[in-house]
Amino acid sequence: MIGSKISVIVWNEFQHERENPAVRAIYPEGLHATIAAALRETPALNAGALPLEIGTATLDQPEHGLDEERLAACDVLVWWGHKAHEQVSDAVVERVQRRVLEGMGLIVLHSGHFSKIFRRLLGTNCSLKWREADEKERVWVVEPSHPIAAGLGEYFELPCEEMYGERFDVPAPDETVFISWFEGGEVFRSGLCWQRGHGRIFYFRPGHEAYPTYHDASVQRVIANAVRWAAPRVRIADRCPMSPPLEKLSPKTGAFARVGIVQEKGEGK
Amino acid sequence: MIGSKISVIVWNEFQHERENPAVRAIYPEGLHATIAAALRETPALNAGALPLEIGTATLDQPEHGLDEERLAACDVLVWWGHKAHEQVSDAVVERVQRRVLEGMGLIVLHSGHFSKIFRRLLGTNCSLKWREADEKERVWVVEPSHPIAAGLGEYFELPCEEMYGERFDVPAPDETVFISWFEGGEVFRSGLCWQRGHGRIFYFRPGHEAYPTYHDASVQRVIANAVRWAAPRVRIADRCPMSPPLEKLSPKTGAFARVGIVQEKGEGK
Amino acid sequence: MIGSKISVIVWNEFQHERENPAVRAIYPEGLHATIAAALRETPALNAGALPLEIGTATLDQPEHGLDEERLAACDVLVWWGHKAHEQVSDAVVERVQRRVLEGMGLIVLHSGHFSKIFRRLLGTNCSLKWREADEKERVWVVEPSHPIAAGLGEYFELPCEEMYGERFDVPAPDETVFISWFEGGEVFRSGLCWQRGHGRIFYFRPGHEAYPTYHDASVQRVIANAVRWAAPRVRIADRCPMSPPLEKLSPKTGAFARVGIVQEKGEGK
Amino acid sequence: MIGSKISVIVWNEFQHERENPAVRAIYPEGLHATIAAALRETPALNAGALPLEIGTATLDQPEHGLDEERLAACDVLVWWGHKAHEQVSDAVVERVQRRVLEGMGLIVLHSGHFSKIFRRLLGTNCSLKWREADEKERVWVVEPSHPIAAGLGEYFELPCEEMYGERFDVPAPDETVFISWFEGGEVFRSGLCWQRGHGRIFYFRPGHEAYPTYHDASVQRVIANAVRWAAPRVRIADRCPMSPPLEKLSPKTGAFARVGIVQEKGEGK
Repeated sequence: MIGSKISVIVWNEFQHERENPAVRAIYPEGLHATIAAALRETPALNAGALPLEIGTATLDQPEHGLDEERLAACDVLVWWGHKAHEQVSDAVVERVQRRVLEGMGLIVLHSGHFSKIFRRLLGTNCSLKWREADEKERVWVVEPSHPIAAGLGEYFELPCEEMYGERFDVPAPDETVFISWFEGGEVFRSGLCWQRGHGRIFYFRPGHEAYPTYHDASVQRVIANAVRWAAPRVRIADRCPMSPPLEKLSPKTGAFARVGIVQEKGEGK
Repeated sequence: MIGSKISVIVWNEFQHERENPAVRAIYPEGLHATIAAALRETPALNAGALPLEIGTATLDQPEHGLDEERLAACDVLVWWGHKAHEQVSDAVVERVQRRVLEGMGLIVLHSGHFSKIFRRLLGTNCSLKWREADEKERVWVVEPSHPIAAGLGEYFELPCEEMYGERFDVPAPDETVFISWFEGGEVFRSGLCWQRGHGRIFYFRPGHEAYPTYHDASVQRVIANAVRWAAPRVRIADRCPMSPPLEKLSPKTGAFARVGIVQEKGEGK
Repeated sequence: MIGSKISVIVWNEFQHERENPAVRAIYPEGLHATIAAALRETPALNAGALPLEIGTATLDQPEHGLDEERLAACDVLVWWGHKAHEQVSDAVVERVQRRVLEGMGLIVLHSGHFSKIFRRLLGTNCSLKWREADEKERVWVVEPSHPIAAGLGEYFELPCEEMYGERFDVPAPDETVFISWFEGGEVFRSGLCWQRGHGRIFYFRPGHEAYPTYHDASVQRVIANAVRWAAPRVRIADRCPMSPPLEKLSPKTGAFARVGIVQEKGEGK
Repeated sequence: MIGSKISVIVWNEFQHERENPAVRAIYPEGLHATIAAALRETPALNAGALPLEIGTATLDQPEHGLDEERLAACDVLVWWGHKAHEQVSDAVVERVQRRVLEGMGLIVLHSGHFSKIFRRLLGTNCSLKWREADEKERVWVVEPSHPIAAGLGEYFELPCEEMYGERFDVPAPDETVFISWFEGGEVFRSGLCWQRGHGRIFYFRPGHEAYPTYHDASVQRVIANAVRWAAPRVRIADRCPMSPPLEKLSPKTGAFARVGIVQEKGEGK
């Protein structure tokens, strides 16, 4: 929200849709296209909301569609990946990380829990339990006043989803917005917020490629809310400056012979 | 605390002490030796404390003294580095990260804020303001009931230290134990706790190599307390298991043609 | 931000200004009038900001100017009190608490740390160290991307303020926006955020009545930002409902003879 | 853990057991007696654990069994109440609050979520959804390295319990140790930690009086672990001291005519 619009890129590894007819039947243009369309059509609920400008990017594009210039202009990046995490180049991951730390928002969806960028920003394995059994998920709203929960009731249901279960190996979140109940007996913290550097990160659990989850109105509402919540408040480049004193220092005794120290410092910092 | 003792390794890049006579005068055997000796001599304050078993390791040793076997037996790793962060091999960093996520404690000292392991576990740049001007630091105890603050008064002073100032680019800590006041006008969150995976991490600010900081009794008390606080409670290897349902699932309609999905899953997870 | 404007009440105990000519010289109409005027004149920095509608209330008014109707229409309450905390009626405190838990924002200023409403919402003593010695305070911005820090530099200074020092006996805040450095050697977490129920609470340290602090542009900026940050996202009345099951329960064995339990429940909940 | 043992008081309102034969059949001596016996018999899992000294107290005793002297000697208070919260005197509640803020641990069980002491320490309504339908609860361990989860597997089950569902109106916890799955479709954060002042608070959901929950070995393990976790690390009485400067202050201009201010201060603080 530091400009007059919010520039969003929906990124998708875009492999299941090409390889598997069952998935393609659900997301003919790729699930990034479905998510992007939903973002265009989901009205903002907060007063004075800025317009969204939506684009997409995929793994097979040069630099995965995330070159320096494009990423520099991006306010919020939405990330879906599953089977090709290892194909994402470390250079792009580092670039995305730098932009998040400067203030860009990042929305990580479902199997993106194992993406390089999510694990790099969080520092943990991000492991969990899982099961593909076409079972019911009920997503409970734990923080109804959180902007990401705006417009939802006390819960919403997805009739068929993959199960993810605790323990989810992530750092303690700043906020837990949703917790899921699964028909098969598990629970999962399925909407989690973190700040890293100046950027906001939201992880949202639902979205296995074999189900029409991103066609669900509640899921679309959550992603649209999350994009607005994660929009940058600032843009601050990393620096580690030597800073002159703001107050007069007391005279020193000279007890410490510090020959050569200053020169060395330059290397370390 | 899952065995009958706490095995500690004090790691030091050990370069300033060899290259700079002024530093060597303060830490003739290396600052790791001073810290290790202090750990041996600082009595535990908590009832029923386990004995510490202290070793050291340095950058120039094979695998930096942190081979698989040794690290596997380590409960708490204390880390001091400054000018040679880039010389630490990525393989060792990854090994240390894995051990922390399994439950090993990690104490990061002073200029270790820029070490690869600290940045990898936290996911941020870990930048800050700094100045070498032989100035007074007063370390305030913000959480007097925290085990790491045991035995300290309301504050302690270091007559000469390097300044580190905010903003310190780290994730919001789980606990802020100390905040420093600097003569030159800055403040710094100088004792910070995080949990990552099952391991505890403590960052402690003081300890520029040009000053006798690690000879200070309060600093020694903090490090000794931190080692005991960070001792592992568990040891749990990473896993991401497929889990069968615990409850009987309702019959499915077969609406989702899921040909080929199961095979693909194996790749992604 | 659930309406088309943000209704703000600036509350002041309004006693020092009437009794002490030195204070009156700084705040002729009361410091609530100065703060209210500043809120009117400080432009919003966020896009799409709603207009503020500003009123004031004081201790000597009926129900302290906070009757049911007025408080029901209030979005954000700003609170300044010092020497008359005990004169605030418990009924009004309870009313304010209920409104905060429903979603109303609360900005507590300076000596309001000892107000009944702040202590009731936080549950702790809210004690601290203090000293009146006309000393310099430098307020450091620890979270530059926080909305409350918008428009500020790395720090701002107040040439003369009362000192507040740690340990500040409050629950761990959700966010620490500012930390103060004091000329006399102390530090203080001087901008702290909490959520309680659905309401946001911000504590801001500066503002001793003997200094022209609320005429300072940076202080005015912080309060204006905080009011917008604390504006309600929802309004949800407290309830503790009996909820019928969402899933079919398994047949029970009847092992538990539960005669009379249901009737009793009504009393407890 | 500041003495050589941990003194525990298990407090119970002790009304259901006297009035309802079905409850009395499960807890003939009162559920406080069952919990106290379990604490005596559950061995500590941490090395060097101090012995527990267990007592009980009930509502109908003078000062509810919590007079000044007894409470002053108490390290950890376990609290069970349900239908008689309003009968607990405000004086005793205030006394317990003061002791928690000084460092005493507090374990609040089940329907104690609505007790005066819990609501006072947390500042919120502590409301939730509920249902008595003899349904299965599965308690998932979300933080397996937390001391309160020691000795448990990935989850444990209670075949019949009252349901509590989100949203649970409590402040964001410091740590979420357990999340419950209910047969009827709800989830609940059922093991939550907070620090208030110097004291640790743990809320543990299970324990409706109509079920033999406190005879369950996993539940007994949790309570025993929690008591040890909550044992005081310090004992610090509340104070709000005027503190002389630690550094020499710069000469003042005398711009602020502060006649009479110092006298007034005494009243306010």
